[in-house]
Amino acid sequence: MCVLGLGLIGGSLLRDLTAAGIPAFGWNRSPETVTAASDEGYDVSGDLPATLARAEREDALVVLGVPVPALPDMLAAVARHAPSCGITDVTSVKGEVLRLVGRYGLSGRFVGGHPMAGTADSGWDATTEGLFRDAVWVVTTDGAAGEDATGYTAGESTGESAGGPAPADVEPWLRVWRRVIDMAVAVGAAVIPARARKHDKAVARVSHLTHVLAEALAVTADQGGALSLSLAASSFRDATRVAGTEPGLVRAMCENNRDALVTALDETIELLNGARRDLADPDHDISGLVEAGHDARLRYEARAGRSGSGQANRPFILLRPGTPGWLDQLHYAESIGAQIGLLEV
Amino acid sequence: MCVLGLGLIGGSLLRDLTAAGIPAFGWNRSPETVTAASDEGYDVSGDLPATLARAEREDALVVLGVPVPALPDMLAAVARHAPSCGITDVTSVKGEVLRLVGRYGLSGRFVGGHPMAGTADSGWDATTEGLFRDAVWVVTTDGAAGEDATGYTAGESTGESAGGPAPADVEPWLRVWRRVIDMAVAVGAAVIPARARKHDKAVARVSHLTHVLAEALAVTADQGGALSLSLAASSFRDATRVAGTEPGLVRAMCENNRDALVTALDETIELLNGARRDLADPDHDISGLVEAGHDARLRYEARAGRSGSGQANRPFILLRPGTPGWLDQLHYAESIGAQIGLLEV
Repeated sequence: MCVLGLGLIGGSLLRDLTAAGIPAFGWNRSPETVTAASDEGYDVSGDLPATLARAEREDALVVLGVPVPALPDMLAAVARHAPSCGITDVTSVKGEVLRLVGRYGLSGRFVGGHPMAGTADSGWDATTEGLFRDAVWVVTTDGAAGEDATGYTAGESTGESAGGPAPADVEPWLRVWRRVIDMAVAVGAAVIPARARKHDKAVARVSHLTHVLAEALAVTADQGGALSLSLAASSFRDATRVAGTEPGLVRAMCENNRDALVTALDETIELLNGARRDLADPDHDISGLVEAGHDARLRYEARAGRSGSGQANRPFILLRPGTPGWLDQLHYAESIGAQIGLLEV
Repeated sequence: MCVLGLGLIGGSLLRDLTAAGIPAFGWNRSPETVTAASDEGYDVSGDLPATLARAEREDALVVLGVPVPALPDMLAAVARHAPSCGITDVTSVKGEVLRLVGRYGLSGRFVGGHPMAGTADSGWDATTEGLFRDAVWVVTTDGAAGEDATGYTAGESTGESAGGPAPADVEPWLRVWRRVIDMAVAVGAAVIPARARKHDKAVARVSHLTHVLAEALAVTADQGGALSLSLAASSFRDATRVAGTEPGLVRAMCENNRDALVTALDETIELLNGARRDLADPDHDISGLVEAGHDARLRYEARAGRSGSGQANRPFILLRPGTPGWLDQLHYAESIGAQIGLLEV
């Protein structure tokens, strides 16, 4: 494994892979990080062309551990110095990344990844072993049916995918896909498959929307002045926690997933307008929203486990990639948000 | 102290007062709770008239530990059976309660209270010692200047209050006020003074709005289906936690504080509409909302302490009730959300 970028995600991944005995080396732009990681015994370098040439030589999977704005430079370097390696990434939007990857002609050997782990901190100093244990790691499936991996914009293909090209045609892509999944499993993550567009729509609702609402709630409370802040209790603290996230990170997520976030935001605004109308009319009540919200939270708890910890109750499906009917299984897994495991063919 | 209603708040209060060696007895409607509390050695009864007659005899402070819908019956009973006792309550809205209190002619001996503690559970079984330690306990100040305690609707009186009636006129009310504060301090709470209207506006922003947004977020995520729920991580879990609150409790809070909540909700909807417009326009970004939200969260953290625990950094003001200038100090404390302590006159 070759990890490019040793921030919180990339660095923690390098730690976990090394700890698991999986050969892994890394690269980082900052000399300080290279020194710090080397001093801890990790196999890292500040020379990108040399690192990629080594990846090509050793047939390593290249993990792009950099944020979206840094991806174009990385993809150009990979195209040039590692012309046949499999590639994956760790960013929180997938459609935008697939488009970039397509622009560099790398779609046939790219599988998107989104490890849903993290803390408020960043950089090598924040890295830690075990960051991914029991975390969800989304792995994209665009390309599984042999379509161009940039099929993100081609609409949903649940029906026709099963009748796509013969499995043999997608074997190079499938090999990368298996390696990405094996890597995620090796560090203790729960792999959930999704096409990029479905992933982006889902995280718009549960993650990016959560950020936008937290910002708006924090601002509205602050507009109430000092007494409001003094009366803020644990419900407010928890609901605005992610408003403490570094603004650049929040913008990168939301602004790279505009369409899906607008759709989710429109639904939320409609719900809030309805509640506002009901509150302004003494003959109305807000039971509609409150009951629906309570039901939705209970469904979430049933899936996540009440603690929201690793004790998740989501379904688990075992797949044999490339065998007849497996694409139907894959789409079914996506539709029910199932974790998957791979069987040898 | 006489605690009417031994649910989570009332029951925990009875435990704490008893543990602190403060004479306290209670009443509850349900015989099961009376038996359970008696079995644990608490001085409780299921006979409301007898309990109130005892409160009158012993000059106890009557604590209304029942939710808003049960208050009219309780107030009628207090008016009849305890004609001179001081009275306080523990509900999360204060204006509606002051109006009810006025209707029963009890304003001159009523001081509103709102202990901001609680868990998702309710009833005697959920009661616990120490529930109020380091919690905020809002104590209303309507009446401090001698105005009718139902002055909630009379507008803000910061300026003219200082020139109100002579302190002697408000002495009976002040005596109740001191007792409520002493009780809150005895169980470890941090007392913050506020007029009912200011309290209701503040909690609309930090508490009731938090509930409404949590409901809307949970519904929007749920509308994304199973994949969305599977990808929901800790940010979503924390932001929707209060959507798990029993719907009747959420409605009671929000629907008893309609005006203030509509104002807060309008501000939030305006912020969200702005973000929606910016997201829909590729030439725009959402830095405005994200930067403002981040700043607001930092101001909240600075006040609450990052942990949001008892390590609060809010200002603390010592008052001598009834002495010259003390009303100005009281309003100043409200305006900066300060905790207060009382000095002997």
